[in-house]
Amino acid sequence: VSAVEPGAFDALVAGVLDGDRRALARALTVVEDDEAGLRTVVAALHAHTGRARVIALTGAPGVGKSTLASALTATLRARGDTVAVVAVDPSSPVTGGALLGDRIRMQGHHDDPGVFIRSMAARGRLGGMAAATPHAVAVLDAAGFDVVLVETVGVGQSEVEVAATAETTVVVLAPGAGDGVQAAKAGILEVADVLVVNQADRDGAAALEVVLGGAFDSVLTPASWRPPIVPTVAVRDEGVDALLGACDAHLEHLRAGGGHVERRKRRAEHAIREIAMVGIRRALGGDPVGAMGSLPRRVADRELDPFAAADLLLTNIAAPAAD
Amino acid sequence: VSAVEPGAFDALVAGVLDGDRRALARALTVVEDDEAGLRTVVAALHAHTGRARVIALTGAPGVGKSTLASALTATLRARGDTVAVVAVDPSSPVTGGALLGDRIRMQGHHDDPGVFIRSMAARGRLGGMAAATPHAVAVLDAAGFDVVLVETVGVGQSEVEVAATAETTVVVLAPGAGDGVQAAKAGILEVADVLVVNQADRDGAAALEVVLGGAFDSVLTPASWRPPIVPTVAVRDEGVDALLGACDAHLEHLRAGGGHVERRKRRAEHAIREIAMVGIRRALGGDPVGAMGSLPRRVADRELDPFAAADLLLTNIAAPAAD
Repeated sequence: VSAVEPGAFDALVAGVLDGDRRALARALTVVEDDEAGLRTVVAALHAHTGRARVIALTGAPGVGKSTLASALTATLRARGDTVAVVAVDPSSPVTGGALLGDRIRMQGHHDDPGVFIRSMAARGRLGGMAAATPHAVAVLDAAGFDVVLVETVGVGQSEVEVAATAETTVVVLAPGAGDGVQAAKAGILEVADVLVVNQADRDGAAALEVVLGGAFDSVLTPASWRPPIVPTVAVRDEGVDALLGACDAHLEHLRAGGGHVERRKRRAEHAIREIAMVGIRRALGGDPVGAMGSLPRRVADRELDPFAAADLLLTNIAAPAAD
Repeated sequence: VSAVEPGAFDALVAGVLDGDRRALARALTVVEDDEAGLRTVVAALHAHTGRARVIALTGAPGVGKSTLASALTATLRARGDTVAVVAVDPSSPVTGGALLGDRIRMQGHHDDPGVFIRSMAARGRLGGMAAATPHAVAVLDAAGFDVVLVETVGVGQSEVEVAATAETTVVVLAPGAGDGVQAAKAGILEVADVLVVNQADRDGAAALEVVLGGAFDSVLTPASWRPPIVPTVAVRDEGVDALLGACDAHLEHLRAGGGHVERRKRRAEHAIREIAMVGIRRALGGDPVGAMGSLPRRVADRELDPFAAADLLLTNIAAPAAD
């Protein structure tokens, strides 16, 4: 049962489409915490999505992703784009930790009606961050933002998958602590469209650029997009114009080859799969009043063979039956 | 596409129901290797299942499960029961290894038409042993065997789950090598209906019995079945009558409390879940011609919202659509 009263969904959806910030905040809370309301909100907003450009910023903790997101937001605003930022922090003990830090770093945009910032903790709902993020992006897209920046910690398969659904995936590294090697291990380099070496004024930055440059020599065909390596010093706004230029060039490359459409399909496929998995995990976890229902008894009584029962199970997961 | 021609299934099913050993061997090969034919065979035979008593023998490698299975088979035959043995060996490099060893140990039953022995390797089909074993049991049940003995290596979650679907689950341990501790770690003691300390003539057997006796003191309510501990020396046929007696007592206990029906439902639920998971894994693994089909494009084109698409995905997994 949703925490939002049935009649209130229409007003919530209208508020989001109108760009009302309180409605937007409420809708994102539904996405995070209200499984019953989520479907209603996403279904109603879906027809209004597909306009926003999604850029993912991903990398290990401490490489400066949030500072870079703030600087990139300022650069986008300077040319007139409205920007929504979704910061996903799976390690946040409560949402509070991530919220506070991001808010401080992003406070330059605090009074700008063209910027909206939301931190999400990767907890709570079944499926976690991987399931919730596509819906948050869809809500912000429907609300009319030109650009949605998704900031994720690039560790773990689900984070990599989420990052790969953006139009442009920016992988952020920084010199020191073997970040290049760690990134390679996490599979994150494979989804990079643009590489950033942040903190480029520190020791080891040039060496990291050389390592990254070599990492793509063996895997790319000449026709492929070769991820450019952009050095930045986000705290001083250095290199951020070049980063946006690289993102723009990548988007043009996608559009020229139809890859733009492929990314949207990939994002859709990811959302479909995550939604299906939420139902499947619950059903197969043995929820006693769930989709399994009386099927085991009917098989044991030989009313149904187990394959017919498995078909009904999957149909029940799709649309839970009274049986 | 099945390796069995469509018209041949009727003959195969009729042969199994008739107890024809070549048909039985062929049907079990379909269960192991022929996903397209599996459904046809299982669906046709299902109405004829439900009569056999299933006993699982499970334990670590080297505790003497196969020798015990052979001795138990002889004891069952002596009182007139027909017996089918399914030996599952996930570590078998080819099926050959398990086959050869089991055949040698079971050779005393070689010329007995009341005994049928089949070794299965836990490889090949998607879902492996956990998916195939319930179907093998169903085929042997339909063929009219009074008892189906399922011999599995009791390591790993799926092996434990398979063992737990029998009417009676016998956990076999032997002194030495910390088997009691290993069994406890693997969660196998929790599904034991009868405990066997095999190689009971060796050092440490008495100590192992004491440890096992203590293991159940803290977890059982007075009304529950308390798993009896049966010492055996399977190579000398010692204790095997007592083991069968313990299995019989457990079956009577189940019948008295309705647990018999619960075990059959549990077995059915396990089979349904494993069948569903085969389809789900394939569909979510991104099979390009599978259930996902054009759904991502339709969501990207805003013909469908992602929740409606996830419903269709699950329906497609249940009954793959042309789309």
